Amino acid sequence: MSKPRVDETELVTTTTTTKLVPVLYEKPAKNPIFFPAILVGLQAIFIILLGLHADYGHEPQPVSAHLPLPPNSIITFPNRTQIRIGAYESAGPSHRGIADFYSMFQDIHVMIFIGFGFLMTFLRRYGFSAVGYNFLVAAFVLEWAIIVRGYMFDFNADTKTFPIDVERIIVADFVAAAILISFGAVLGKVNPTQLIIMAFIEVLLQSANEFIGLRRYCAYDIGESMFVHVFGAYFGLAVSYMLYDEKLNSPEAEQREKSVYNSDLFSMIGTIFLFCFWPSFNAGVAAAGDSRLRAIVNTYISIASSVLLTYICSCIFNKEKKFDMVHIQNATLAGGVAVGTVADKIVRPFGAMIIGSAAGALSTGGFQFVKKILQKFRAHDTCGVNNLHGMPGLLAGIIGIILALFPAHSLYTDNLLPICWHGAYRTYIGQLAYQAAALGTTIAIAVIGGVITGIILRLPLLNDDRPSSYYNDRTHWETPDDFHQDAITAIHPVEVEHHHV
Amino acid sequence: MSKPRVDETELVTTTTTTKLVPVLYEKPAKNPIFFPAILVGLQAIFIILLGLHADYGHEPQPVSAHLPLPPNSIITFPNRTQIRIGAYESAGPSHRGIADFYSMFQDIHVMIFIGFGFLMTFLRRYGFSAVGYNFLVAAFVLEWAIIVRGYMFDFNADTKTFPIDVERIIVADFVAAAILISFGAVLGKVNPTQLIIMAFIEVLLQSANEFIGLRRYCAYDIGESMFVHVFGAYFGLAVSYMLYDEKLNSPEAEQREKSVYNSDLFSMIGTIFLFCFWPSFNAGVAAAGDSRLRAIVNTYISIASSVLLTYICSCIFNKEKKFDMVHIQNATLAGGVAVGTVADKIVRPFGAMIIGSAAGALSTGGFQFVKKILQKFRAHDTCGVNNLHGMPGLLAGIIGIILALFPAHSLYTDNLLPICWHGAYRTYIGQLAYQAAALGTTIAIAVIGGVITGIILRLPLLNDDRPSSYYNDRTHWETPDDFHQDAITAIHPVEVEHHHV
Amino acid sequence: MSKPRVDETELVTTTTTTKLVPVLYEKPAKNPIFFPAILVGLQAIFIILLGLHADYGHEPQPVSAHLPLPPNSIITFPNRTQIRIGAYESAGPSHRGIADFYSMFQDIHVMIFIGFGFLMTFLRRYGFSAVGYNFLVAAFVLEWAIIVRGYMFDFNADTKTFPIDVERIIVADFVAAAILISFGAVLGKVNPTQLIIMAFIEVLLQSANEFIGLRRYCAYDIGESMFVHVFGAYFGLAVSYMLYDEKLNSPEAEQREKSVYNSDLFSMIGTIFLFCFWPSFNAGVAAAGDSRLRAIVNTYISIASSVLLTYICSCIFNKEKKFDMVHIQNATLAGGVAVGTVADKIVRPFGAMIIGSAAGALSTGGFQFVKKILQKFRAHDTCGVNNLHGMPGLLAGIIGIILALFPAHSLYTDNLLPICWHGAYRTYIGQLAYQAAALGTTIAIAVIGGVITGIILRLPLLNDDRPSSYYNDRTHWETPDDFHQDAITAIHPVEVEHHHV
Repeated sequence: MSKPRVDETELVTTTTTTKLVPVLYEKPAKNPIFFPAILVGLQAIFIILLGLHADYGHEPQPVSAHLPLPPNSIITFPNRTQIRIGAYESAGPSHRGIADFYSMFQDIHVMIFIGFGFLMTFLRRYGFSAVGYNFLVAAFVLEWAIIVRGYMFDFNADTKTFPIDVERIIVADFVAAAILISFGAVLGKVNPTQLIIMAFIEVLLQSANEFIGLRRYCAYDIGESMFVHVFGAYFGLAVSYMLYDEKLNSPEAEQREKSVYNSDLFSMIGTIFLFCFWPSFNAGVAAAGDSRLRAIVNTYISIASSVLLTYICSCIFNKEKKFDMVHIQNATLAGGVAVGTVADKIVRPFGAMIIGSAAGALSTGGFQFVKKILQKFRAHDTCGVNNLHGMPGLLAGIIGIILALFPAHSLYTDNLLPICWHGAYRTYIGQLAYQAAALGTTIAIAVIGGVITGIILRLPLLNDDRPSSYYNDRTHWETPDDFHQDAITAIHPVEVEHHHV
Repeated sequence: MSKPRVDETELVTTTTTTKLVPVLYEKPAKNPIFFPAILVGLQAIFIILLGLHADYGHEPQPVSAHLPLPPNSIITFPNRTQIRIGAYESAGPSHRGIADFYSMFQDIHVMIFIGFGFLMTFLRRYGFSAVGYNFLVAAFVLEWAIIVRGYMFDFNADTKTFPIDVERIIVADFVAAAILISFGAVLGKVNPTQLIIMAFIEVLLQSANEFIGLRRYCAYDIGESMFVHVFGAYFGLAVSYMLYDEKLNSPEAEQREKSVYNSDLFSMIGTIFLFCFWPSFNAGVAAAGDSRLRAIVNTYISIASSVLLTYICSCIFNKEKKFDMVHIQNATLAGGVAVGTVADKIVRPFGAMIIGSAAGALSTGGFQFVKKILQKFRAHDTCGVNNLHGMPGLLAGIIGIILALFPAHSLYTDNLLPICWHGAYRTYIGQLAYQAAALGTTIAIAVIGGVITGIILRLPLLNDDRPSSYYNDRTHWETPDDFHQDAITAIHPVEVEHHHV
Repeated sequence: MSKPRVDETELVTTTTTTKLVPVLYEKPAKNPIFFPAILVGLQAIFIILLGLHADYGHEPQPVSAHLPLPPNSIITFPNRTQIRIGAYESAGPSHRGIADFYSMFQDIHVMIFIGFGFLMTFLRRYGFSAVGYNFLVAAFVLEWAIIVRGYMFDFNADTKTFPIDVERIIVADFVAAAILISFGAVLGKVNPTQLIIMAFIEVLLQSANEFIGLRRYCAYDIGESMFVHVFGAYFGLAVSYMLYDEKLNSPEAEQREKSVYNSDLFSMIGTIFLFCFWPSFNAGVAAAGDSRLRAIVNTYISIASSVLLTYICSCIFNKEKKFDMVHIQNATLAGGVAVGTVADKIVRPFGAMIIGSAAGALSTGGFQFVKKILQKFRAHDTCGVNNLHGMPGLLAGIIGIILALFPAHSLYTDNLLPICWHGAYRTYIGQLAYQAAALGTTIAIAVIGGVITGIILRLPLLNDDRPSSYYNDRTHWETPDDFHQDAITAIHPVEVEHHHV
C-alpha cells in the first residue's frame, strides 16, 4: 500500500463513497505578476493624491467643543459678571472631535477587522483567506475611501485640500463595511487580485451613491442600512451571479463549503463583537445629544430582539428542533441592520423591539429558505449576505419610507441642507419620495455596478483560479502540516475509529 | 467489522476500558413546543410593556454638563435672548450622559457577551451551547432587566414612564452578569427552556434584592460584588443543588466535562477580556471625579494582584508544580470581584493590592479544594462560580463591612438619600449594620430563590433532557461532521498511534 | 505490539523518518521552590512600597479640564469683563483625566493582554504558555512599573508620595509592552522564573532609559518606538543570544516550533486587535488637540499602508507566490511602530503612508531574510521581534532624527522643559543630536542590559529546563488529553490516512 502524495490528491466524500482523487493544483498563472503590480501601482497613486490634496483636520477648541453657543453669546454669572463667547469659536457648534468620535470609532474599527474577519472564518479550509483577505481588503479600502470621500464630500476649493479627522476615518470604515459585505457574497470564489479590483470599483460607486442619497436626496440613513448594507449585499450578489460556475456544486467544493467545530467557534467571535458594537455603528456619526442617545438605545433593543427571534425561528425551522449555527452566527445581527435607517429617530423603544423581532425572523427565514432559491438562480451567496444585510437592509429602507409619514418622529427637517434638492421647502411627502428614491437608486447602482464589475472580474486575465481553489486556503496561502489532516479526519468520523472496536 | 453508526453510539472511556455503547439520543419531547412558545410569549409581553411605559432618557444639555455654572446663571445670546441655567437642569449636576458612560458601557457589554461567553467554552463538547446560550440568555435578560429595573427603580408616576439611557443599559448588563454567573453553575445540565425560565425569575429577584440593598439599606457596592456576584453564584448553586442527578458522575458525562487544548484557548479569550475590562465594570456607574478614578485604579491593582497570586498558588497546589488552566482562566479574576464593594472608596493602592492578593489565593484554593467538597454535598458547580464569584464576593462584602468602621475612608454619607432607612441620621455603626444586612439579605434571597427556582425547573414538563445531553452540544445543536471525531481522538492518544510504531 | 507510554516518549519527525523516542521529562528541580517564593517576596515588597508612597491621583475639576489656563489667570474679554480662573483649577493646564485617557487606556490594555498574548499563540504546543505567561508577566510588570515609574518620574518630595491615575496606568502598560516584546524573542526557551527575573530587571532599565530620553534629552517619541519597541527588541535579542542552546535546532524542537491551522487563527486574533488599537497606543499620551488628532490619523494611515506592503512583499518573496501567515501576523503591524516617534508631528498624510509602506516592506523582508541570518549568529528570535519591533523601531528613530531638521514640522520646542539639558536654548540641530543620542542610548542600554540579564538567567539555579521543554507546554502546564494526539496527527497527515485507501 503506497502512500499517496497529498500534494496531488484531494479527498472527496460523496454521500456513498470516499476516495482520494488526483487534483492539479496549478499555480496561478498570471496573478503573481498582477497582484503585487496592481497593488504597488495603486499605493503609489494614493501617496501622490494624499500628497497633493490631503491635510489633517482640526480638533475643536476646548470651549467651543463644549459650549455650542453662537459666537458673541454672553454668559452672565450670578454675580452679574458676563463673558462673551467668541475668541475660542473657530469651527462652530457642530464641529466635534476626538472626545465625541474616538471611542465609537474604535468600536467600529473592531467590527470591521475582527467582526467581519472572524465571522467569515466558518469555512473549514478557508480561515486564513477569510480573516486574511478581510484584513487586506479593509486596509486597502480605508486608504482609498479616505481619498474618494475626501474629493467627493469634503474638497475645499480654496485651500485645494480635503481634511482627515476622526469623523472621516469612521466614514472610511463604513465604506469598508460595504465592500466586506460584498466580499461575503463571493467568499471563497475569487482570488485576491479580483478582490482588490472589486474593492477599487465598489468604493467609487458606493461613495457616489451615498453622495446622491445624502447630499442631494437628503435621505436619512444614520446607520447606513441602505448605503452600506443594501448596497454591499446586492453589489456582491450581482458580482457572484456573474462569476457563477457549475463547479461550485462539485462534491469537493461542497465538502469544503462546510464548517468544523472550531471554525464555528472562531466565527462566533466575529458575531459577538459585531453584536456588541453595533450601537456604535448606528450612532457613530449621529448628531450629538438625544439623537445619539436614541441611536444607541434603539440599536441595543433592536439587536437584542433579533437574537431572541433568531433562536425562536432556528428552533422552529429545524426538523429536530435544534439550533443551527449558521442562523446564530448571522441572523442574530439583523436587528442592527433593520433599525439602522431610523436608529436616531423617535420610533420608541417598543418600536425598536418590533423592528428587531421582525428582522430576526426575516433573516433566519432567509437563511433557511431564500438562500437555496437564490442559488438556483445562479446567485451563490457564501455568507448569506442577502439574509443578513440585503433583506434586513431593505426592511430598514422601507421602515424609513414609512416613518417619513410621521414628521414628528422622523424629524426629517434636521437633515435638510441648502444643497439638498428642494431643501428648505420639502414636505414630508417629499421626504417620503426621496427616501424611496434613495433606496431605489441604491439598488440600481449596486446591481448594475455589480454586474459590470463581475464582467470585468471574469476576464481570463484575472479569473485564473481553478475549481480546486474554491474555499481552499492552499491555493494562495502557505498552510501548516495539519491543514490536510484536519480536513481528512473531519470527514471520516467512523473509519478512523472502527479498528478499535 | 461493520461500521457502527455513530448516531446511535457513544464512546465511553473508563479507567480500564474503552468501548462504543449504544445511546438513545431521544429527541426532547416537550421542549420543542415550549421553547419557542414561551419565548414568543415573553417577547410579546415585553413589547407591550415597553409600549405602555418606556421612553428614551435624555442627554444632558451641553452647558450644564461641562460648565458647572451656579444655578440661575444667565446666558445672553447675541440677539439678546437670555436663558437661565436651570431650564436645562432637569436632573441636577449628577445627570450624566454618553460622554460619561458610553465607553465603559461598551467594555462591560464585551465582558458580558465575549467575556462570559467564551470563558465557558472550555468544555470540549459544549462550546456551541456555552457561547450560544450565553448569547441568548444575555440578550433576553437585557430586555427583561430594562423593564423590571424601569418599574422598580425609575418609574415616574407623573408621566407614567421609565426612561432608557446609557446608564440604564449599563445596569441591564450588570443584571445579565448575575444571571450568567448562575448559568455557569448549571452549565451543561439544563436545557434552553429551563435557562429562560431561570433567567426570568432571577431578574425579578436580583433586582428586588438590589433595590432593597441600594435604596433602603443604602449599602455601598459600586462593583456589584454582593448584588451581582454573590447573588448570582449562590442562586446558581442552589438551582444546581436542586437539579442534582447521580448520572452527572457517569463516565460519559465526566469524559465530556473536560477541556481540550483549543477549548482552553477559546476560554482564555473570555478570561482576558474580563480581566482587561473589569475596571470599567467596577467604575461604570461610580460618581464622576475622584470616586471614579479610585474605582479604576483600585480594580486595576487588585485584579493584577490576583493574577500573580493565582500563578503562585496554582504552582504550589499542584503536585508536579505545574500551572492548572482552570485556575488561570478563573481565579486570576477574583481580585476584580473582591475589591468591587469598596472599589470607589479610599482603600489606598496598597490596600487594593492586599485585597487582590487575598482573593487570588482564596479563589485558587476554592478551585483546588472547595469545589470537590461542594460536589459531595450535591452542589455541582460546572464553572466553579463559588470560587470565582461566590467566595471572593463574600470577601468583598466583608471588606465592605469592615471599611464601614472607617467613615473617612468609606465616605458612606455620599450614598445616603432621603429614601434610605435612617438616611440622614445614620452613624457609621449604622452603616456597618446595613452593609451586613445587605450581604445577609443577598445570600438569603439568592439561596431561597434558587431553591424555589430549582423546584420549578425540575418539573417533568421542563426537565426532559437525558443524561446523554449533559455537556453535549448535540442534543440541541446541529453539529458539524468533526464533532464526534474530535471527541474520539481526544480520548485515544495512544490507540490511534500504536500501529505506526 | 505494546503501547508505548506517551509520558515517556516523544514523537520525532525528520525529513525521512518518524519514530517514537524516549524522552526524560524531568521535573524542574529547583524552580518549584523558587518560582512561588520569588513572586511572593516581590509581591510583599510591592505592597510595602505602595503602602509607603503610593496615593491616588486626582481628576481635574470640571472647568479646568476644558479651559486649560494656569491657576489665577485672568481672562479679559472683548468687553473688558474679567474672570479669574482659580476656584476650579486644582491641577494646572496639562492635567487631564478619565475623559481624556480612559477609552484609549482600555484599547492599549487589550493590546497588551489580548494582542500580545494571542499573537504569540502561533506555536502548536505552546499556546498555554504564550497566552498564560503573557498574562503573568504583564500583570507583574504593571505592578512593578507603577512603582518604578512613580519613584523615577513622579515622586513628590514634599508629600513623599507618587500619584496613580489613568495616565500613569497607561504608561505602566507601555512598559509592559517593552517587556512582552523581549518575551517574544525568548518565547519557548525560558521558564517562568527566568521570565519574572527578566521582567524585574528590564522594568528598571527600560524606565531609566526612558527617563534619560524624555526628561534629559527631551527627545520626542510619542508612540514609544525607541523607548519601548527598540528597547524591548534588542534587550530580548541580547538575552536570547546569551541563552543560545544548540538543542534548539534538534528535530524535536524544530517540530514544535511550527504552527498548526488553528494556532495561526488564534494568533490572528492578536494581530488584528493590535492593528485596530495601534492608533490609541501612539496617541495615548499625546497632547490634547491637534497633536492627538495627528497621532491618530498618521497611525491609521501608516499601519494600513504596512498591511498592503506586507501582502505585496509576502507574495513577491514566496516562490509559489503564496502568502505566508508569519508575515501577515506580524509585518502588517510595522507601520504602527515606524510612525511612532513622529506620530504627533506634521508629517502629512502622504508622509505617513510612505513611512508605513517602507515599514511593511522592511519588516516582511526581515522575516524572510534577516531572521535566518541572526539565527546563524546565535540570536534566535522566536517571534521575530527584530523584524516587527527592532528594525521598524530603528526606522522610526531615524525618521525622528531626520524630522528634527524641519522644526516647523517637528514642533520640538513643545517638548522642552526646564529640566531638559539645554532646555530653553536648544537649536533644531541640538534637537537632532538629542534624538540621535536617545536612539543610541536606547540601543546601548538594551544590549548591555540584555547581555547582563542573560548571564544572570543562565545561572544553573535558574536555567534548569531540559531541551524537551522548548516550545512545550507540558513542562509547566497541566495539559488536556488531546495535547499529544493533536501533535501526533498533525505530523502524520499520510500515515493515519493510508490504511483507508
